[in-house]
Amino acid sequence: MDGEELRVRRELFDIPEGVIYLDGNSLGAPPKHVAERVQEVVKHQWGTRLIRSWSEGWWEAPQRIGDRIGRLVGAAPGQVVVGDSTSVNVFKALMGAVKGTGRTEIVVDESTFPTDGYIAQSVASLTGLKIRPARPSSLDLTEDTAVVLLNHVDYRTGELLDMAEHTERAHAVGAQVVWDLCHSAGVLPIELDALNVDYAIGCTYKFLNGGPGSPAFIYVPHAKQATFENPLSGWNGHREPFGMQPSYEPDPGIVRARVGTPDILSMLALDAALDVWDDVDLAELRQRGLQLTALFREHVQKLTDLEVVTPEQRGNQISVRCPDAKNVMDELVNRGVIGDHRPPDVLRFGFAPLYVTDEDAVKAAEVLADVIR
Amino acid sequence: MDGEELRVRRELFDIPEGVIYLDGNSLGAPPKHVAERVQEVVKHQWGTRLIRSWSEGWWEAPQRIGDRIGRLVGAAPGQVVVGDSTSVNVFKALMGAVKGTGRTEIVVDESTFPTDGYIAQSVASLTGLKIRPARPSSLDLTEDTAVVLLNHVDYRTGELLDMAEHTERAHAVGAQVVWDLCHSAGVLPIELDALNVDYAIGCTYKFLNGGPGSPAFIYVPHAKQATFENPLSGWNGHREPFGMQPSYEPDPGIVRARVGTPDILSMLALDAALDVWDDVDLAELRQRGLQLTALFREHVQKLTDLEVVTPEQRGNQISVRCPDAKNVMDELVNRGVIGDHRPPDVLRFGFAPLYVTDEDAVKAAEVLADVIR
Repeated sequence: MDGEELRVRRELFDIPEGVIYLDGNSLGAPPKHVAERVQEVVKHQWGTRLIRSWSEGWWEAPQRIGDRIGRLVGAAPGQVVVGDSTSVNVFKALMGAVKGTGRTEIVVDESTFPTDGYIAQSVASLTGLKIRPARPSSLDLTEDTAVVLLNHVDYRTGELLDMAEHTERAHAVGAQVVWDLCHSAGVLPIELDALNVDYAIGCTYKFLNGGPGSPAFIYVPHAKQATFENPLSGWNGHREPFGMQPSYEPDPGIVRARVGTPDILSMLALDAALDVWDDVDLAELRQRGLQLTALFREHVQKLTDLEVVTPEQRGNQISVRCPDAKNVMDELVNRGVIGDHRPPDVLRFGFAPLYVTDEDAVKAAEVLADVIR
Repeated sequence: MDGEELRVRRELFDIPEGVIYLDGNSLGAPPKHVAERVQEVVKHQWGTRLIRSWSEGWWEAPQRIGDRIGRLVGAAPGQVVVGDSTSVNVFKALMGAVKGTGRTEIVVDESTFPTDGYIAQSVASLTGLKIRPARPSSLDLTEDTAVVLLNHVDYRTGELLDMAEHTERAHAVGAQVVWDLCHSAGVLPIELDALNVDYAIGCTYKFLNGGPGSPAFIYVPHAKQATFENPLSGWNGHREPFGMQPSYEPDPGIVRARVGTPDILSMLALDAALDVWDDVDLAELRQRGLQLTALFREHVQKLTDLEVVTPEQRGNQISVRCPDAKNVMDELVNRGVIGDHRPPDVLRFGFAPLYVTDEDAVKAAEVLADVIR
C-alpha cells in the first residue's frame, strides 16, 4: 500500500480532529457512510416499508453478511452467520463441539478473554465435562480432550497463535478446536476452510468497525453442519421458520446456527461498515499492521524504559507493562491518545491499519514518554 | 383519551401516506424522533466519543432501559434488563426456573409461539426433564411440574390469559411460571411484582416500537436474583466485568441476567422509542385498545361471513379465519391495509392504540370485505 492508497483509506473514516485513535481493537471507528445508511434503514426500510422489509432483505441478512465476513476469514459461502453476542456464539460452538464425543474435558487457554472461560464453565457444568485451563504453549491435548478453545490473538498481550499448528495438534488426537477470532478478524489473512478448522467465532465491532455491540459471527463448516446441534434452538434456525411447526427441525445448513430475530439496526450498520473491506488485500494489510506496530514499539523502546509485553508473533496490538496503568491511560486520553488498559498493569494500543498513520504511531509513543516522565 | 389526545399521539409516529398499519403486533412503527436519535448515537457517541462512550452511558444502558420497561409491566426498578433475543431470554428463564427444583416436567402451552416450545425442548434435553404440552384451559399442573411457560396473549388468536389466576394455580402446587409478554407489553396494565410472577420475558419490537429485532427483556424479581443462575454466564453479568477474573462470579442483582456486549444501536433506538410511553396511562390505553378491536370486529361481522377467532378476553389483536389467507393478505397489503397471516388460515390485525384510528379500523374491515367478495 503506497502513501496515496493509505490516505484514501483513512478518508473513508470519521476520526475526530486532534485524536490519535489506538483503540480499534476494542471499538473500531465508524466509516463515514455508515450514518447515512443507518438513517436509510430507520426512515425508509423501517418507517416506510414497515413489516414488508422482512421479505425485502432483512430475513436473509444474517447469512448474506455472514458470507461477507466469510471472505475475510477464509470461509467459502454458506458457513458463517451473523447474530447474537460473542459469548452466545462461544456457547453454541462449544456445546456443538462436545455433543456426542464421549470425551471428558474441555481445554481452555488459561489467559483467555474471561467470557470464553466463563461460558466454557457453563458448558462443562451442563454437559458433565471438566474444564482444564492450560497455556497455549503446553496444551497437552489427549484422547480425553473433546475440544480446545483458543484465542487467535491474545486480548492482553497481543500474541498471535499459529492456527495451522494448533489445529493440526488438536486433530492429531481426535480433538476439535474452536477459534476465537475477536482480535484477528480484519487484521490478517485467516484460512478457516484450508486449515479444516472445526468452529470459529468472533466479534465485529473491533477491527471490522461494525459499531458498538454489533452482532458476532459463528463459522460452522459444511462438513459439520448436518450434525451441529444448536443448543439455542430458536425459530430463526428452523427449517421452515414461518411454518409455525410444533417441533424443532433445524435448517440443513448454516441457518441452524441462528436463534431469534436479528437486531437489524446494528446488523445493517455492520453491513455498511463492511463496504470498506470490499477491495482490501488482507496480506497487504497485514504488512501494514506489522509496520505500524513495529514503528510504535521501536519508539516506545527508544523513548521509555517500559517493557513491551507483546511478542514478535503478534496481532495489530502493542501492549506495554506500566505501573499505575489506569492513571497513565487517563492522562493519555486527556492528551488525545486513546488506547485502553487491562488490569493489573497493561496499557494496550491497537493499530487499525485502515485509519492509523505512521505519524500517529510515532506521536503516540512520544506522548506516552512525556506522560510517564 | 379524547380525540385531541389521540391526534397528538398519532402525530408522534411516522405512518406512510395511504397506509392503514395493523401489524404493530409484529413490528411497531417508528416514533418520528427515533431517526434523529440514532443519528446522534452513530455520529456523536460512536463517531466522536468513540470508546469513551462505554463509560458515558452505554455500559449501564441494559439496566436503565430495563427499568423503563419495568414501569410498563409492573416491575419496580432493578428487576428487568434488556438484551439478547426473546428466544435467548426464554432459555435463561427456563434454565433458571428448573435449576435445583428436583421436579420432572416443564409444561408448555401447546399453541405457544413456536420458538418458546423449541427452546423448552432444548432446556428439557439439557436438564433431563420432560416437556408436557397442554392447553391453557387444562394445564393440570402437579407437584412434578417445575415450571409452566405461558403466553400472556396468544400470537395466533389474540386470546388473553388471566395472569393472576394462572400464576396462583402454579404456585398452589409449588410450580413456577414464566410469562411471555411479547404480545401484551405496551397493550395493557401488567402487574408482575404484585402477582409474584417468577420470571417474565418479552420482545420490544411489537407494541413497544423498538425497531426491527430490538433487544428483548427479562424480568427476574428481587426474591429470585440471589439464586438465579444464568446458563449463559457471559462477562457482562459478572460482578466485576472489567476485573478480568478467571472465574465467573455473578453480579448480585439483575445484572447477572446480562450476557455479552449489548447491541448499542438497536438498544438506543429502543430507548428513544420508549419516550412516547413516558406519560401514557396503560389503563386508558387498554380501554382504547378494546374500543378499536371491538369496532373492527363489529364491522367484520357486519360486512363479511368470516369467523372471528379472537375471544372476548383478548389483547390488541383480532384474528379472522379465512381460506386462502396468504393471497387475501397480499391483496390487502396491495390496497394499503397491512396486517399479516399465520398458517394455515388466520389473518391477523393488530391495533396499536398510539397510532391506529377509528377510521383505520372501519376502513380496514371495508377493504377486507371488498377483497373477499
